[in-house]
Amino acid sequence: MRDELARGRPRDPGIDARALASAREILAEGGFAATTVQAVARRAGVGASAIYRRWPSRVALVESAVFPGPDALNLTHTGDIDADVRRLVAAYCGLFDSPAARAAIPGLFAAYQSQPDRHRVVVDRVGEGVRPAFRAMLAAAAPGSVEPGLDPDTVLDVLIGAALYRSFVHPFTGRDNPPDRIAEFLLRALRP
Amino acid sequence: MRDELARGRPRDPGIDARALASAREILAEGGFAATTVQAVARRAGVGASAIYRRWPSRVALVESAVFPGPDALNLTHTGDIDADVRRLVAAYCGLFDSPAARAAIPGLFAAYQSQPDRHRVVVDRVGEGVRPAFRAMLAAAAPGSVEPGLDPDTVLDVLIGAALYRSFVHPFTGRDNPPDRIAEFLLRALRP
Repeated sequence: MRDELARGRPRDPGIDARALASAREILAEGGFAATTVQAVARRAGVGASAIYRRWPSRVALVESAVFPGPDALNLTHTGDIDADVRRLVAAYCGLFDSPAARAAIPGLFAAYQSQPDRHRVVVDRVGEGVRPAFRAMLAAAAPGSVEPGLDPDTVLDVLIGAALYRSFVHPFTGRDNPPDRIAEFLLRALRP
Repeated sequence: MRDELARGRPRDPGIDARALASAREILAEGGFAATTVQAVARRAGVGASAIYRRWPSRVALVESAVFPGPDALNLTHTGDIDADVRRLVAAYCGLFDSPAARAAIPGLFAAYQSQPDRHRVVVDRVGEGVRPAFRAMLAAAAPGSVEPGLDPDTVLDVLIGAALYRSFVHPFTGRDNPPDRIAEFLLRALRP
């Protein structure tokens, strides 16, 4: 018993989910500036130390809350490249266009000016970590449905950029800009 | 003479250029936080009031310094859609990837969380204001070189997004990512 206390209580996985959900709520309501470790801890009903045991900083917490990593993009491949690309574009648009992400992205990028190593973390989580699954998606496409000479990295960069820019501008333009329209344009370029 | 003094000195266009160049230098050297109206005035050798007569705020000054508007993108069209798209992609990559813009963008977007009207200004300057010239570029393409059913707004959104995302990630990936590779991918989608 004494040993167990010394090692600390067993980690409660429910706290992770509560903290991340609380961070997303506070981002959407009050923006990046309001999303402090203290505010997230209070909303999640835990102590600040429980947050710091899981994330070393507010920036790391916000990154986990809005960019959970490749798994959240649902990167399955079915061999139907049209369906796979549509699903991936929609997933990235959903990622960047959530109220929490829209509030977090400017604050994160401002923080990265003095923390380039954290910038690298989010670049890996949003883009680089997705490349193996994206290459597999292209490789699994039905024969003759994708131009074999294309550079998969360029394709994925263009896809992510289109989704990111859409989230920056579409609240201001009044133009309808459904994710499927982006996907259809990219699919034209993918065809042999 | 008295009247002229009362109306103030004639506006010196050299001050505009000096202030914008000074702002770009300070952005590149010290980031957005260092780029105050006072610091720009000092570097440009003018009083802060000369800056405020031209730009109502630091945010407006930084916007003018890094996003000078459609004219800076050199939006000519030659009828050769390949050359025109390559030039436009290179212009956007140059715009977003300059040291001043890389330093300014996070600070601007953080400021826009409390100033959505300024966000609209930059969306107009970077994207919406370019649409008429981009439509003219597509319309001027040699017959049979561009798919007529494409939505020009989607094409431009994807093009701008690809250039923007490239500027965020390419310092971290170590991948070679020349603007021409983006242009070639987009041109595949443009062909009938």
